[in-house]
Amino acid sequence: MLLRASTSGFSSRAGAPMQVTRVDQIAIAVPDLDEALAFYERAFGLVPEYRERVDSDGVEEAMLDVGGVWLQLLQPTRDDSPIAKYLAKNGPGLHHLGFGVASVGDALDHLRDQDVRLIDEEPRPGGGGHTVAFVHPKGTGGVLVELVEDDAH
Amino acid sequence: MLLRASTSGFSSRAGAPMQVTRVDQIAIAVPDLDEALAFYERAFGLVPEYRERVDSDGVEEAMLDVGGVWLQLLQPTRDDSPIAKYLAKNGPGLHHLGFGVASVGDALDHLRDQDVRLIDEEPRPGGGGHTVAFVHPKGTGGVLVELVEDDAH
Repeated sequence: MLLRASTSGFSSRAGAPMQVTRVDQIAIAVPDLDEALAFYERAFGLVPEYRERVDSDGVEEAMLDVGGVWLQLLQPTRDDSPIAKYLAKNGPGLHHLGFGVASVGDALDHLRDQDVRLIDEEPRPGGGGHTVAFVHPKGTGGVLVELVEDDAH
Repeated sequence: MLLRASTSGFSSRAGAPMQVTRVDQIAIAVPDLDEALAFYERAFGLVPEYRERVDSDGVEEAMLDVGGVWLQLLQPTRDDSPIAKYLAKNGPGLHHLGFGVASVGDALDHLRDQDVRLIDEEPRPGGGGHTVAFVHPKGTGGVLVELVEDDAH
């Protein structure tokens, strides 16, 4: 049974303060990045565009371009990193979802106005030189959301 | 620190038996679909393209087009559906990742050859009239993967 949704679209209203425009990334927590990359190539034919160590987040990450969306594999580089804690609690798997927005600062202002719980109160540097901020999963119905500012991909 | 990955790419090898070409969908388990849709519109400016009840899977789903990738919100319609069990065990959040492939049947053959554990041994009908099959999270490093056969999106 298909039901066409009503189209009282936020995106078409004048003055809409926030619009997610794209999925920037899907991040997966892995215990061993080399092993995970070998699996994604063998099983799905996916290979990394680049690898990066982000010491401020305690991760080494590999980015696989899947039709314009980044699949990000995240391995902890120290025991006290958020990814290490996530793996210890939940095991490997889907970790967070990255949404592209025109301005992370404006998006944070909007989410604060909407009483959505944040992790980062201000935009900060993330992987690949992007400006990012994280929204708390308790604010979004269980999904850790990263806001990623639009630029060249 | 950026490290360019070596490019011994599977995708460029002759006779590569499997290539994921795109992210079809990111699925999120929600206890209340109406409430979740109201949140995604209010917080992120995202509205559904359509809603569908898939009785064979025990779900009602709403599909939000985020720059060409489907964000799929899944609410259980009965207590014994996989999504109801997932919510009872894990709470709401990221549930599965859908990869687009040219042929689900060929992809299943390839994954069997690679000893990757499957949930569906044969292609089957999924939401929106698509041909799909699920790969077991124990076969993929913790991620429930849905293979979705390419067609018009």
